[in-house]
Order: sequence, then structure tokens, then C-alpha cells
Amino acid sequence: MAQKIRASIIGASGYTGGDLMRILLMHEGVELKCLTSERFAGVPVTKLNPNLRGFTQATFVSVTEIKPQENDVVFLCVPHEKAQDYVADYMKNYPHLKIIDLSADFRIHDQKTYEHYYCAHRHPQLLKEAVYGLPEIHREQIRSARLVACPGCLPTSTILPLYPIVKAGLIDLSHIVIDSKIGSAAAGASFDISTHHPERQGVVRAYKPSGHRHIAEMEQELSEAAGTQVKVSFSPHGVEMVRGIFTTVHAFLNRPVKDVDMWKLYRGAYGNSPFVRIIKDKETLYRYPEPKMVAGTNFADIGWEIDEHANRIVLMGAIDNLIKGSGGQATQCMNLMFGLDEKTGLWQPGLHPY
Amino acid sequence: MAQKIRASIIGASGYTGGDLMRILLMHEGVELKCLTSERFAGVPVTKLNPNLRGFTQATFVSVTEIKPQENDVVFLCVPHEKAQDYVADYMKNYPHLKIIDLSADFRIHDQKTYEHYYCAHRHPQLLKEAVYGLPEIHREQIRSARLVACPGCLPTSTILPLYPIVKAGLIDLSHIVIDSKIGSAAAGASFDISTHHPERQGVVRAYKPSGHRHIAEMEQELSEAAGTQVKVSFSPHGVEMVRGIFTTVHAFLNRPVKDVDMWKLYRGAYGNSPFVRIIKDKETLYRYPEPKMVAGTNFADIGWEIDEHANRIVLMGAIDNLIKGSGGQATQCMNLMFGLDEKTGLWQPGLHPY
Amino acid sequence: MAQKIRASIIGASGYTGGDLMRILLMHEGVELKCLTSERFAGVPVTKLNPNLRGFTQATFVSVTEIKPQENDVVFLCVPHEKAQDYVADYMKNYPHLKIIDLSADFRIHDQKTYEHYYCAHRHPQLLKEAVYGLPEIHREQIRSARLVACPGCLPTSTILPLYPIVKAGLIDLSHIVIDSKIGSAAAGASFDISTHHPERQGVVRAYKPSGHRHIAEMEQELSEAAGTQVKVSFSPHGVEMVRGIFTTVHAFLNRPVKDVDMWKLYRGAYGNSPFVRIIKDKETLYRYPEPKMVAGTNFADIGWEIDEHANRIVLMGAIDNLIKGSGGQATQCMNLMFGLDEKTGLWQPGLHPY
Amino acid sequence: MAQKIRASIIGASGYTGGDLMRILLMHEGVELKCLTSERFAGVPVTKLNPNLRGFTQATFVSVTEIKPQENDVVFLCVPHEKAQDYVADYMKNYPHLKIIDLSADFRIHDQKTYEHYYCAHRHPQLLKEAVYGLPEIHREQIRSARLVACPGCLPTSTILPLYPIVKAGLIDLSHIVIDSKIGSAAAGASFDISTHHPERQGVVRAYKPSGHRHIAEMEQELSEAAGTQVKVSFSPHGVEMVRGIFTTVHAFLNRPVKDVDMWKLYRGAYGNSPFVRIIKDKETLYRYPEPKMVAGTNFADIGWEIDEHANRIVLMGAIDNLIKGSGGQATQCMNLMFGLDEKTGLWQPGLHPY
Repeated sequence: MAQKIRASIIGASGYTGGDLMRILLMHEGVELKCLTSERFAGVPVTKLNPNLRGFTQATFVSVTEIKPQENDVVFLCVPHEKAQDYVADYMKNYPHLKIIDLSADFRIHDQKTYEHYYCAHRHPQLLKEAVYGLPEIHREQIRSARLVACPGCLPTSTILPLYPIVKAGLIDLSHIVIDSKIGSAAAGASFDISTHHPERQGVVRAYKPSGHRHIAEMEQELSEAAGTQVKVSFSPHGVEMVRGIFTTVHAFLNRPVKDVDMWKLYRGAYGNSPFVRIIKDKETLYRYPEPKMVAGTNFADIGWEIDEHANRIVLMGAIDNLIKGSGGQATQCMNLMFGLDEKTGLWQPGLHPY
Repeated sequence: MAQKIRASIIGASGYTGGDLMRILLMHEGVELKCLTSERFAGVPVTKLNPNLRGFTQATFVSVTEIKPQENDVVFLCVPHEKAQDYVADYMKNYPHLKIIDLSADFRIHDQKTYEHYYCAHRHPQLLKEAVYGLPEIHREQIRSARLVACPGCLPTSTILPLYPIVKAGLIDLSHIVIDSKIGSAAAGASFDISTHHPERQGVVRAYKPSGHRHIAEMEQELSEAAGTQVKVSFSPHGVEMVRGIFTTVHAFLNRPVKDVDMWKLYRGAYGNSPFVRIIKDKETLYRYPEPKMVAGTNFADIGWEIDEHANRIVLMGAIDNLIKGSGGQATQCMNLMFGLDEKTGLWQPGLHPY
Repeated sequence: MAQKIRASIIGASGYTGGDLMRILLMHEGVELKCLTSERFAGVPVTKLNPNLRGFTQATFVSVTEIKPQENDVVFLCVPHEKAQDYVADYMKNYPHLKIIDLSADFRIHDQKTYEHYYCAHRHPQLLKEAVYGLPEIHREQIRSARLVACPGCLPTSTILPLYPIVKAGLIDLSHIVIDSKIGSAAAGASFDISTHHPERQGVVRAYKPSGHRHIAEMEQELSEAAGTQVKVSFSPHGVEMVRGIFTTVHAFLNRPVKDVDMWKLYRGAYGNSPFVRIIKDKETLYRYPEPKMVAGTNFADIGWEIDEHANRIVLMGAIDNLIKGSGGQATQCMNLMFGLDEKTGLWQPGLHPY
Repeated sequence: MAQKIRASIIGASGYTGGDLMRILLMHEGVELKCLTSERFAGVPVTKLNPNLRGFTQATFVSVTEIKPQENDVVFLCVPHEKAQDYVADYMKNYPHLKIIDLSADFRIHDQKTYEHYYCAHRHPQLLKEAVYGLPEIHREQIRSARLVACPGCLPTSTILPLYPIVKAGLIDLSHIVIDSKIGSAAAGASFDISTHHPERQGVVRAYKPSGHRHIAEMEQELSEAAGTQVKVSFSPHGVEMVRGIFTTVHAFLNRPVKDVDMWKLYRGAYGNSPFVRIIKDKETLYRYPEPKMVAGTNFADIGWEIDEHANRIVLMGAIDNLIKGSGGQATQCMNLMFGLDEKTGLWQPGLHPY
């Protein structure tokens, strides 16, 4: 391989930054420069990432240590609102630098919508510069983007199974129900009573059954697919696992659909997308997508079942929220932005049993 | 207390029978006569129910050991199809005997519907004799019933939050989406690869996303509430817990509804039902129902959230599938049938943390 | 039942206090007076104990609300060091009042040992007044005690299987290895990174493999049994469960022992102790004690296996750390102190499956 | 890389064979020939290994399909007793072929010991040909071996922390207590009531507290280290995880030992062993080995704590039983046998959080 991509991670001490660090450390085409954390500056990264013992001697540094001119790409793993100024600074002052923002700050093209769900946006003029970093939908735009805004984990698991069927006009756009089940790592590395093990273990817990911020991304992408404004009904639930999302979409059909139609639709949409696997098997226990099958990987497994009784189609999506829903997807975008094979550094199967 | 109720359990070696046994053993008004199992006849019940060590010396016996004339009530914990002949025999030959059937054989009033979802019915004339044993909906009928057909666990968690709102005409009956999450004990005591721990641990696994048998009960009861035929969109998911169901109902509103309306509706419907708790709290982690809060109890906790954005209401129901979804509900019915306080033998809080 | 026992709990907002509250609320012979918490004064107890919804309307109050003269017993569920002054005050000023201290402050008879493992003791003269509240060992002393110091959870699971065999002189006192496995509820209601679900889920984590404070209690009681000073080798491990302890004791035999000898020994020691069950079964899956079988109960299940190859005996103890290891044991002591049947309010089987 | 190693797996349909298949599929130096299963011959391997979807189109074949002359190495993943004849056949008739046996059939050098713990051995003359496949102890022998017998998973987690300290004569050889905690995948892909999820979830379950077969391997290797016969006291416990073993060794010191001595000892023993990590950290949550840190990897993390009070040292070992305890170790042996870097195809960090 030619020259390595010089990369830094800002906000590397959380779960998102930590897992991205793991991926980039093992990526043959990347040279990791700075891993920043204001709170843990000076601390070896293995203190927070015991899995990386033996793989790195790096320590966290302050963000002030980053020399943008010595980087080809910067990954932002800071909370939304905090990413805004970094992006603005880098976009303005370091034209050579590519930026992959894992926060929500540049995902939403519409300022008002962003501000409704999040907070004031200080650099709204940059919103139109950002590409929504879902390679299976926006691959070509990502290739030439300077600023990529990586999708949220729940939207990734939702948009991938829904996009083709919405685009094909097969479903009633007024009654799209999205019911997600998500593991505890979604909370990130910061803790409170809601993640205290005795309180979190074995739950099925609705949180934000209405009004969840990720609705904004879902509706933006699905509206684009539909060519008209789409509203979704979205409710996520915490369940007992650490990594993983399973999303069930309940949609009502505009016209009868058969399995063969769905095969064609999904193969047409994702035939060239190595990380989308279509799971529809009649004979095995594993006949639908499952989070356990994608844990530790960058795959998004999608599937469906047709319910003739209720004129409904059930779509299913499963991802590892820390990989395809986060650092893996960011790496996939980076590969595209730098002309590498999309799979580089990410082509790993999961474990069975996990 | 006066004379004890003499009770037997047919098919006592499964999880349903085992947990009913536990409840009845501790019930001050019940004398347990026979606990039958053909496979385990002669074996002490504590061999299969290690929790009951110190509480009973009983052994399983063959069903031929039951003397119906020495019983006041018989509980049927056999699979559907097998209960049919027991019920017919007892109904015909032992007029004094009350029957509580925990199988699906007498839940469905309509023979065709039953036979569509299950199998041929050999005693269809008895279908009209059975009362659907959901005390919160059919309390008065249960009091005077000879034959009670206890609801399935998933329908219990679904019908309770839905019934009042359907009856009040508040929701669009054409788009009722029911997304349930259920623990592994639902599989019963018999095992296969799907319940093998390495394969089942930590899953979110769709099973029967369409066409699940419990749809029949749900539609029967909800149609009665609506005064018109209702179709539901139902998909259950296995998740990582042993006991417990959490059901999320996504329904679309016919007209705007406020929290205060829901409080009134549910209080009106369940104000006299000790085992339904309305959970709607703004300030705590536990602001919605959760399976962990009802585990080990006969409670059905119900709650809701209004989604103005999508004109939707999210209803939630949580039960312990082996208690309120099974033996506890059966005991509650028995209490009513014999004129006892509904709560007798069942008035226990859960554990926190569980 | 005659006059109810008037009881208050100081420090009722943690898991220990919360579970004791649950037990006492359901105890037919107890009238709960004050449930104190400085942090949560004014807050309904169900906000922290969602399982108790429908069972109480009580709110936490400040400890200053307690009127000792209107109580018959006070339970102390505060951390060690904090219990010292409450005990001293009540012992001195309220001679009618019985005190059950669930902290470690009065468990250790020897001041030096206490201070080695904990902190300075401000009222060492009271150490000799306290009875170590393990009813199976000190039942008669507890009956007449004014001050009972309830054992720690790990010592309860350890001393019960070991005491009789140590007393009988069957094992080598120099090589007693105690390897405990414990659930996350042991951490109490306060949280940090070590109990953050993604970090705690599925662990087997050694903590304090040497020097754990509970060694002091174990050695005190076992030395008493032995009639000579005993040292133990103790290492606890956090494992994936919420409630429960399983303790494996590895001891070396002074002379050959047979199963029948162990049966005699344990029956002799615990034949009159309703909450100790001897578990030794050849034919079932449940042939040894298990935490799942005692979860939600006050039982201490004990068992053994003889290892002729290594001249070793393996002793096993399983308890629910929040019940037999905490509030249940405290209630058992209270029953004895007030002349009630030891089982009152505690005679419940566990759930199967749990 | 030069010519690929042509490899087949006999008995590829279990968890051991399945995970070995995953590793070899991704191994750049291996060409997989036959994956045999009599029961699943003709079935795509992804039906049993859903994680491998997208990575292989292979189907299971009957063992009769193997052409030994077209293979360089055969891995045996069949149960003990069944491996004997395959090994004898290949050793006799295919001198070019290397054999890596993952069963117990050739682990024990002493026929009597093997037959005491297992069954009759039909080819005892081959026992002396086999090398015990623990690379960290027998690296040089493995390099030149034709027949390697891979260690059991529990012995791997035990021998690695114990071997150096036994060899150094630091501990009392008469009181070595080994207390292991192991996940459910150890049961393999075959199921019964003991692995039924409701019965297995959340357990701490002693199984074979005495007389476990793996004692034979442990004593063989440790006796070799000691230069005298060693007996161990070994008890494994099933705990709630899928993959993973944590072994706690409690040993008594012959003379005082300090942390610095242990560092020297372990560095000396394993400084050249890339898959042994010494974990001993004062400041973090992860200061000892943990199964979660090695899950999905070939690492064996080892650590210790000194207990001056009881003159004891606590040794700890953590591995993924399906990798370092099985197929990963087998691959590591293969690398050595074929002159590859030991790390080839295995150099992956785990996930955090897992």
C-alpha cells in the first residue's frame, strides 16, 4: 500500500472513539496520529481500552496537540454541539483536511429541523457541505466529500431496510412504525442510575417512545427516497445486551408484494454493498437478522416477513451499534474518501456463538 | 377460612404447571390433591421444581389417579388439542367440577378461527360455554363460569392496555401495531437448539413476525370492545430475560388525546382491578412499565406516551408471563369462581432490584 | 396476632433498606413507622422502589423524624462507621428499644480487628453487647439480645457450610480456601464505572482477591467453632447476576469422610433451622445449591462434594445476598427477638425458573 | 506468501469446528479443503454458522470425501475416543500429513491415566508421538511435531499461570486449589435441559466439583514443571457468559514473594509469547485478567495477587475457551508446525465493551 492516511480522533476516550481507535489501529492503510481527550490527557489509552493491551503504547493527548497540517483526516467523536466549531475551523483553515464527524451536528440538512431536535447551530452555512455518511445510499457523494456526517446508529438500522421499499413506493408513508431494541453500550462510557447494572440488567425499557432525536435523520433520508415528506413513528427500547441494535419496521403495503419481489428489490439496491447482507432463510434458526450475528462486525443484516393477514410487511435490520452504527461506518466512509476498497480494515466475520 | 378448595393440576411438570403449583401450595384457601405428569409419575415434584424444596413432599402421579368427585376444580396445563377431551369429559360427567383451562382450546369462541390457527376442535359445542379468563375484562362472567379459558400471555399484555382505548373509539382500528418482547421461559420446559443457552443468550430474535396464533385472541377481544371486526399487526421478539413480557402497542389517534384523558380512561376501566397498575411517572427512571418490576407477581403494569408528531399513541404493557400470563391469572380466576377475594394468594410485590 | 412491632429503618433508600422495607411491609406482625433518608426526604418510597407501587404510600423522612420512644425496634441500614453513634445513642437513651444493625460496626467483637479492617471505633465498650445475628449459630443469644449485628452477605454464605465441619474438627484449618461468586446488587444502589452495565455485564471479575473486610467475620466465627484461631483464604468474584451469592469452600480433610457423615453433621447442626436446606441430590440437574433457587427467599442452601483424589471436601453455599444476606436475616433476627416464629413474614419459596 | 497450507477439519459442525473454520477461512496462509460432518453433509456451513454468511459458500461433506494426500494438515474436532482411529490411520498411511487433534485422545502421555479418566485407548503406542499443544510451554516440540494434541480449555487457563511458579518451586504442591468459572459455549452445540436458557441463564452452577477429566492434563504438565508428582484440587463452575473462562488458582507460598518477583517470573517465562499478556494494574477497573477482555481473541491474560495474611498467592487466568482454549490454539500450533509466524491469522484485539 502507498502512503498511509494520517488520522486523528478528537474525543477518543468514549466508546465511539475507543472502538474507532481499535479499527484504525488494525487498518493497514492508516497511521494514527493523535487520540485526544481533555479529561484523560497523559493516560495510556489501554487504561480505558483494556482490549488494546499489546497493540498500542499510545496515550491520550489534549486536542491542542493536534497539528491539522500533519493529518489527512480528523474524526470527531465529541458530543453534538461540540463538533460545530471544530468543523468550522478545519473547513476554513485547512483545505487539505477531510473531516468525518460522528456527532449529529452536520447530519441534518435543514437548520430548523436540527435546531428543533438539538440546539442552535453556529455554522448553518456548512450544513449543505456535509454528506450524510451512509455509504449504501450516498456512496458516490461520500467519495468526493470533504465533510462527512456519519449517521446515528438507530437511523442506520432503520434507513437501510426502509430506503428501497420507500423509494419503490410500496408502502403507506403515513403509518411507518419503527420499533428498535438496543444494547447498553448506546449510553456511551458515561454512567448514571439508568445504566447501573442491577437496574439495567434484563430490562425491556422504553425510552423516548416519542420525540427521539434520531427521527430527524430518518425522515430526512426517507423523504428523499419518497420524493415527499415522510413522518415516522419511532420508539426505541433498551434491552439486555451490550452491543447491538435490532430494528423492527412495521409498514403497510400499497399493493401485494411477494418474497421474490423483495429479493429483487434488495438485491438491486444493495447488490454492490458488501456490508449489507440479506437474511431470509426458511430452514434455520437464523432465518432473520439478529444482533448476535453482526456483533463485532460492520455488517448491516436486513430481512423481512410479509403479513398478508394485516396487509403488512415487517422489515428487520440488525447492526453492531458501535461499528456499523459508529466507528466502522466512519472507517467505511474514510476508505471511500481516500479511494480505498470500502472493505479495507473492516472485512471480519462475527463470532458464533457470540 | 372455611372449607378449602380441593384442586388438581393436570400436566403439572411444565413451567406453567410448576408455577401454578407454587402459587396454589402457598394459597391459604387451597388443598392440592393431584399433580399429574405421565412422564414423571412417581417422581417428587421438587426434582423439577427445586425452589419448592421444603414446601412439599408431593410426587407427580398419573392423570388416572385423579378422582374428579374429590376435587372442586381442575387446572389444565396440557398443550392445546390435548385439553379438549378432558374438558368435554369433566363438563359432561362431573357437573360439580369447575375447570380452568390454561391451554388455547377454549379461548376462541369461533370454531373456524380456532381451527385456522390451531387444529380441529372435537367439541365445538362447548366453545360457547367457556369464559375468556381475563378478570379485568370479564370479571362477572368468570364469577359464575364453570369453564374458564385462561388467556395467552402475549394477549394478556396486549389486551389490557388496548381494550379501553379501543372501546372508547380513540384509535384507528386499521393500523394497530403490536410489538412484543418476551423472555425465554415462554418456550416452556422443553428445549431445542433455539433455547440452547449459547444460541439464546442476548438475542433479539423475531419469531413468527406474522401469523402468530395469539392474534386470534387479541382480535376476538378487541373486536368485542370495538363492536366491529378488528385486525391487528402482531410481531413478538425473544429477548434476553427468563420471565417477562413487554408489549409496545403503536396506535394512531382518531382525535387528539391528552395525558389526563388517558388517566381517566384507564382509571375508569381498571380502578377496581387490583392487579392493573397504571405507570406514568415524569420524574423517575421507572416512568413506564417494565418487566423487571412485575417479575414474580401477578401485576399487569400499563402505561402510555403520546406522540403528537406522528399522531400516535404508544401503549405499554408489562407482565410476568408465568404468573399474570399463566398460573397467577388462573388463580385469580379461581378466586373469583369460588367467591374469594381476587387477591388471595397473589398479593405479593416483586423484588427490586430483580 | 397481638400488638404489632413498631419498626423504623434508618437509611432506607439503598438496596438493603429497600428490600428490608418490602419484607417488613408484608410482615403481618410489623407496623412500619419511619423510613429515613436524608437525601430523599419527602420523596415517596415507590420512586426508588417501583416494585412497591400499590403497597405503600409512604415517603422517606429525615432521621430527625424518628421518635425512638414510639418504636420497638430500629434497623440500621447505613454504611459502617455511620451506625456507631446511632447505636450508642439508642443503647444509652432508649432502654426499651431493640437495635438491629445491618452495618459492620458491631459484628466484630475485637476492637483491633475491627479497626484493622474498617476504621476507628468510637464506642468499643458496646462491642461486647452485640450478638452476631446469624440465627443458625446464635439463635438463643439473639432471642435475648438488645443489639444484634447482622452478618455480611459473603460471611453468611461461608460460615453456614463451614461452621459444623470446623467444629467437628474434620478439616485442616490452615488451608481453607473460600472462593465466592456474587451478583451486582452487592454494590448497593450507588454506581460508578465498575457497575456501568457495558462494563459489568457478563464479567467474571476478581475484586479484593486478598484482604477483603469480610474475612474478619469469617475468622471470628470459625475460630469460635474451632476453639482456636483460624485464618481463611478468601477471594470474591463479581459474576453476571443481580441477586445472589455462591460460595465454594475448598477444604482439606483431616480424615476420610463419607456422604453419610456429612448428612449427619449438617442435619445435626441445622435440623431445627428452617432456612437452611441441605442440597445433595444424585439424580437431577439441581444436585448442588444454586443462587437461582434461593433468589427472592431467605434460604441458605448448603451442599458438598468429596474429592478423594485430592483429599479435599468442596462445600457450597447459596443465598440471596439482599435477603438471607441482609434484610431477610435481619427480619429473622427480629422475629426471634420478639418471640415470633422465626419464619414469620419470610416463608416464601423462590421462583422456578428464575 | 508461498504455497498455502491445505487443511481440512473433521467434525466441523460443532462449536469447536465452527470457530476453527472461521479462523482458517480468514487465515491468509490456509486453503480450506474439506469441512466434514456426517450429520450435516450437503448442508451449507453458513446454516450452522450464520456469522460466516458472505465469507464462504462451502458445504459440509462426509469424512469419506477427504483425500489425505491433498491435504497438508488435518484438524480433528471430534469427541474423544472417536479421534483415536483417525489419528492411527493418518499416522500410518499418510506420512506427509500433520495432525492436530483437538480431542483429549492424545493429550495424556500415560495410558493408564487416560483410561482412568476417559476410555480404553486402542493405539497407546502413539501416545508418545503426540506433543501437548500448548505453545507457550512446548513451542519447540510443536515446531517439529507430526501429531499435536491441543490442550483442553480449562487446562489452558490453569497451566499458563501455574507452570512458571510451580517450576520455580515457590508454592506448596499439596494444596493447589483451582476454581474455574466457565461460559455456556463449553457445552458445545449439543443441548439438554442443563443448557436450556431458562435453566442456564444467570446460574452459578458447580459441575464435577471433583473428578473432572481435565485434572489429568493439569497434573501431567504441572508434574513435569515440578519434577515430581503434583495433585490438584479442581472445581469448575458454569456462570452466565457464552464464551470465556476465568480460572482462580489459590496456592500457598513456600516463601515470601513480592510483586516484582512475579513480574520477573512471568516475563521470563512468557516474554516471547505474544499471546500471553501479564495483567497487573493498580489504577484501573481492569487490574486483573477478565474474560470480557479476551473474548474473540487468542490471548491468555494472566495475573496474580499476593495475600500475606494467609500466606497465599492468587493466580488468575482468562481465555476465550473457543479460541485460545480450542481453535485459536490449534491454529497457533499449525503456524508453528509450518514455519509461519505464530501470530498469523490470530493477531486481533478483542472488543471493548464486549
